[in-house]
Amino acid sequence: MGGNTIGKLFQVTTFGESHGKALGAVVDGCPPGLTLTEEYIQKELDKRRPGKSSGQSPRREKDKVEILSGIFQGYTTGTPIALLIYNVDVDSSAYEKIKDVFRPGHADFTYFIKYGGYRDYRGGGRSSGRETVARVAAGAIAKRILEEYGIEVTAYTISLGGIFAKERNLEVIYKNHLFCPDMEAYKDMCEKIEKTKREGDSLGGVVEVLARGVPAGLGEPVFDKLNAELAKAIFSIGAVKGMEMGAGFKVASMKGSENNDPISPYGFLKNDAGGTLGGISSGQDIVIRVAVKPIPSIRKTQKTINEKKEEVEISVGGRHDISAIPRIVPVIEAMVRIVLADHLLRQLANLAFQKRLKFPEFFER
Amino acid sequence: MGGNTIGKLFQVTTFGESHGKALGAVVDGCPPGLTLTEEYIQKELDKRRPGKSSGQSPRREKDKVEILSGIFQGYTTGTPIALLIYNVDVDSSAYEKIKDVFRPGHADFTYFIKYGGYRDYRGGGRSSGRETVARVAAGAIAKRILEEYGIEVTAYTISLGGIFAKERNLEVIYKNHLFCPDMEAYKDMCEKIEKTKREGDSLGGVVEVLARGVPAGLGEPVFDKLNAELAKAIFSIGAVKGMEMGAGFKVASMKGSENNDPISPYGFLKNDAGGTLGGISSGQDIVIRVAVKPIPSIRKTQKTINEKKEEVEISVGGRHDISAIPRIVPVIEAMVRIVLADHLLRQLANLAFQKRLKFPEFFER
Amino acid sequence: MGGNTIGKLFQVTTFGESHGKALGAVVDGCPPGLTLTEEYIQKELDKRRPGKSSGQSPRREKDKVEILSGIFQGYTTGTPIALLIYNVDVDSSAYEKIKDVFRPGHADFTYFIKYGGYRDYRGGGRSSGRETVARVAAGAIAKRILEEYGIEVTAYTISLGGIFAKERNLEVIYKNHLFCPDMEAYKDMCEKIEKTKREGDSLGGVVEVLARGVPAGLGEPVFDKLNAELAKAIFSIGAVKGMEMGAGFKVASMKGSENNDPISPYGFLKNDAGGTLGGISSGQDIVIRVAVKPIPSIRKTQKTINEKKEEVEISVGGRHDISAIPRIVPVIEAMVRIVLADHLLRQLANLAFQKRLKFPEFFER
Amino acid sequence: MGGNTIGKLFQVTTFGESHGKALGAVVDGCPPGLTLTEEYIQKELDKRRPGKSSGQSPRREKDKVEILSGIFQGYTTGTPIALLIYNVDVDSSAYEKIKDVFRPGHADFTYFIKYGGYRDYRGGGRSSGRETVARVAAGAIAKRILEEYGIEVTAYTISLGGIFAKERNLEVIYKNHLFCPDMEAYKDMCEKIEKTKREGDSLGGVVEVLARGVPAGLGEPVFDKLNAELAKAIFSIGAVKGMEMGAGFKVASMKGSENNDPISPYGFLKNDAGGTLGGISSGQDIVIRVAVKPIPSIRKTQKTINEKKEEVEISVGGRHDISAIPRIVPVIEAMVRIVLADHLLRQLANLAFQKRLKFPEFFER
Repeated sequence: MGGNTIGKLFQVTTFGESHGKALGAVVDGCPPGLTLTEEYIQKELDKRRPGKSSGQSPRREKDKVEILSGIFQGYTTGTPIALLIYNVDVDSSAYEKIKDVFRPGHADFTYFIKYGGYRDYRGGGRSSGRETVARVAAGAIAKRILEEYGIEVTAYTISLGGIFAKERNLEVIYKNHLFCPDMEAYKDMCEKIEKTKREGDSLGGVVEVLARGVPAGLGEPVFDKLNAELAKAIFSIGAVKGMEMGAGFKVASMKGSENNDPISPYGFLKNDAGGTLGGISSGQDIVIRVAVKPIPSIRKTQKTINEKKEEVEISVGGRHDISAIPRIVPVIEAMVRIVLADHLLRQLANLAFQKRLKFPEFFER
Repeated sequence: MGGNTIGKLFQVTTFGESHGKALGAVVDGCPPGLTLTEEYIQKELDKRRPGKSSGQSPRREKDKVEILSGIFQGYTTGTPIALLIYNVDVDSSAYEKIKDVFRPGHADFTYFIKYGGYRDYRGGGRSSGRETVARVAAGAIAKRILEEYGIEVTAYTISLGGIFAKERNLEVIYKNHLFCPDMEAYKDMCEKIEKTKREGDSLGGVVEVLARGVPAGLGEPVFDKLNAELAKAIFSIGAVKGMEMGAGFKVASMKGSENNDPISPYGFLKNDAGGTLGGISSGQDIVIRVAVKPIPSIRKTQKTINEKKEEVEISVGGRHDISAIPRIVPVIEAMVRIVLADHLLRQLANLAFQKRLKFPEFFER
Repeated sequence: MGGNTIGKLFQVTTFGESHGKALGAVVDGCPPGLTLTEEYIQKELDKRRPGKSSGQSPRREKDKVEILSGIFQGYTTGTPIALLIYNVDVDSSAYEKIKDVFRPGHADFTYFIKYGGYRDYRGGGRSSGRETVARVAAGAIAKRILEEYGIEVTAYTISLGGIFAKERNLEVIYKNHLFCPDMEAYKDMCEKIEKTKREGDSLGGVVEVLARGVPAGLGEPVFDKLNAELAKAIFSIGAVKGMEMGAGFKVASMKGSENNDPISPYGFLKNDAGGTLGGISSGQDIVIRVAVKPIPSIRKTQKTINEKKEEVEISVGGRHDISAIPRIVPVIEAMVRIVLADHLLRQLANLAFQKRLKFPEFFER
Repeated sequence: MGGNTIGKLFQVTTFGESHGKALGAVVDGCPPGLTLTEEYIQKELDKRRPGKSSGQSPRREKDKVEILSGIFQGYTTGTPIALLIYNVDVDSSAYEKIKDVFRPGHADFTYFIKYGGYRDYRGGGRSSGRETVARVAAGAIAKRILEEYGIEVTAYTISLGGIFAKERNLEVIYKNHLFCPDMEAYKDMCEKIEKTKREGDSLGGVVEVLARGVPAGLGEPVFDKLNAELAKAIFSIGAVKGMEMGAGFKVASMKGSENNDPISPYGFLKNDAGGTLGGISSGQDIVIRVAVKPIPSIRKTQKTINEKKEEVEISVGGRHDISAIPRIVPVIEAMVRIVLADHLLRQLANLAFQKRLKFPEFFER
């Protein structure tokens, strides 16, 4: 039961299904006095809008966000901010004929079992990647908070379909629709996408996310470590099958003398830790890599069964992306921002007490 | 603030420092009527006891667990079970001379910053790996719960210091002190450990964890996905730098048609998903791999600074392990069990309502 | 930070301001397979609709609820149910001239301090009683859950403006607009309201709430006792200044031999406890009384100050109720239902484990 | 399931049974740098120690608290503070003969039902008032936090067995064992206790609690209102049957013009609200009254049944108090402090962000 809320002081609750009436989020814990507009949030949503290029679904989601509460005269008031995105241009007819089929790689089977057969089969319902639109909207509010402390989160594609970015040129990531930091690799990725499209198949990849300007001290021992909370947030994205931080899986073959980041009077001399020590941010960049599986909906024929356990062949044609990659990039950014905003506030409580921060007094005592 | 509690219905809170008086856990949410003894818990603790073999610290931790509450006449009563492990054989003298030094790869620096200079520098205090003894104790109670549903969790070492297990022979993992499922690889690992010990260095590795018998339906959309909660639990272990599930990072180079697990009337035909679909268990085995960094405490001289920002050379001699690997294996098992027990209970609430499970009536109506 | 979510397994998050765009709730944790319609929820909302009679604000709130998610083909799916109520017929002009004034008895001052001067002054913003419309909508879903277990919650007015109901005739409570179980008292209450209206003043009262059919065993030791959670839920309603259970404040002058409820083989012989023992439901009716303060918005001139600490006289005319009573009755019902639904599910998890409730198996093992 | 943890940033988890091995608490969220000793905590525990006077149980509980973690060199470190109180002088023999009897007014029946028959019948087990010793210990840490902000919480007995304190002379409350602010009333109360003791009966009463120096701005809309959280904390104490704030139940017969507290440039002109407006502290004293039921364990013969539904007569002799009053006073103080400390930290996070409180920088940027 439950499970659609994340965060402790900065708390995000989302709702909505792929082909339902609307998706949305309630953000509770945004401090007062921040400017916030629908345009600001929309900008983040537009990052995940499909239909801009090859490899993406032609569904013309407008994903127009509406702020329903929590803002007055352009400023946040400290009360919950509700964000609403109506589903438009929804055509569920394609799902009618496969409504009792368990699509391979999808949550159809597990939702069927978990909820005793009651499930919205249209586009995967709540389990659809489309659910993340609400996360991106909520993440924009986290972004607004982090801005005030100079914290920047940037995600980009470092591998897609087996093609690897050799460069990390962050300046070009918004100049290509795959958020790739290497324009050469980008071209190869596009080719690979086109080829895979023709084959009726799909592609996985790896996204790297970088958080810069994170102050030292965020994260709590022992279970709410910053990396633990980031891991939860990132693995809560449907297509994610792996995550590593700093040197990541390479640590398995490293020695302590190689892996430890030496410290000098001017700071750390390298960053194999990826930004945390003992689960608490060290002031270094947070560096995380995320493995993204290929989109399970493919045109190629697959074998599966239906709710009656009958064998079925399925080809999921239509309006589907070839890779989750371009859309998942802003989602990963959003989740990292949500966790950072939450831990920023948690550590501010700690710091404020350490400094015995004074409460405002209106009346003379 | 906070952060030392994990779980929603099965809730574990831990406390204690490496060189403090005691470590322990309060387990809230264990159902009534289960047999539970100190011996049962002790067995799990003994799995992580050092001093059994080469590569491990000679500190003679007895780690004798005491049950303080929640058990009556040998049965759990449904009330919180407090577990206590006194620290014995503690010698903090080695830490006096480095009390203001930030050991590389340790949390000394981040705790110093986070807590305004107040920190228990003896053996890393709360940030020590020793903290996990309380998790293992609590995990034994989770194990007791899972047993009732035939759920088994087993972790084992598949790589250490660059040596990889080729076999997955689970029958031998308790026959070697590294929990390695390949006796050939085990021998090489031991040699590597001896060599590294002589060099005054340490080693990382990879642990795989397998959960068998997990019913379909555990995990909640969208943030409390089973894999998301497992990721948090696993990344909350200090030495963890990476985690992957099923095919893991390999998905990045796979096609949808390869990655999707086909479904037949007799079940899934393979398990690249690693046991969840849409974040909910599918009834397949849960398969996770965890990257463990080399222990940062090494005899080799390292450069670092102290609290006054002065350059310091440090050689951490004494009673240290060469790899976190053998000890971390039962910790990973414990964390996976804690998450599974929590989600088992969450899904039982859901199922019980679906079945309109009757409440016991004592008086006739 | 935070604070707009209540419940553990049945979780309600609300948002919205009195004069904002919309109010709403996200209900996370409703089990699947329940029929649920907008009409069903609307019926509860209509109970708190003003303009039906004397003593209530003429504002023509339509409070039309819209379900945005979580329902498919008429059934709940187990995913979050978002409920939306747009604010219509909103005229904020009256608030412009008092926008910097702290209305006595209202939260204007405390919100001003808490949020550093950023506040939606129109109709009290988030602190308005209007916020409870979202609770009533969410409470309707809790009602739907409780129905399945034969649990009924009924609230009614037992005192208003110093006039006390002598009878507890529950059959008449929906036959008068004050939900009074005594038609004689009702008439006197109406007269009192008319008189007070002419004086430009307002009235307090007492509401009693009765929960029948609650099974024994709901509530958790020691902090999440059923009465403790009910107390939180009830005191979270703005106008509430007191709550008592069973014999309530009378226990202060009772002896143990009087106060204890004797138990016979056929059940308890009386119910001074009010339905719980040790914080856990006993199977007896839950009986709670709630003290409701007079509405602070009155036409009578009051002394207060503005944000600049200048003395101000204020007369809050316009569209205001004379007593919170009729509207607060469904709100109290809603809050009690939300707590009961949450604890029903929590105890179901416990019971299901005690019974080793089987998980559904789709594939043969 | 669960329920033994309270608080969000300042989190208290308790464990232990009346006749078990030990009771204790884990306090997570105490900021670093506070001096804290066992003596400081012991002082609070001694307030609830029986055996000091008539009307209290002769059981010689020493209730010696031990700090197990979270303190280093006399200062809090920001990590969890575990507190342990071993049960000594425990004689459970009296409970053997009533082990299957449901004592009237106790939780025996509800625990029996809830936990499927598994219950520690010795002294009520977890449902015993003795459990509150852990709360008082934890409350001492909250007290230590509040001291830093000049917040003082004081509880005292204003009625016992139908005798009412006419005065509120706080200077005498520690000069009499009932914490009564009226020495005349105290004498009458003592006489009443003696008389009731001879009758083999017990007495209820009312405790008032006063929190002074609470800054304006504590409490969160809408569910985590300060009064709502206080209500939960107070109703979580076993013997509590009612709570009112400020004018309390009197508001039911008041008019708005009487009940509203006028505001002047120098502050509020009276305090019928009892310290909060809209659920947020106003800077006025918080004033709460708590109805405490007579202790259910009495020597007088009572009718009840046992687990087999057989009629039984019971006389609970032995070492029992006549009233919960003197012991419950420090418990109420503890619970109010725990809630205030939690909300102090929550509002500090808010304030710190509003002020853009700087994070410490160790390295130059």
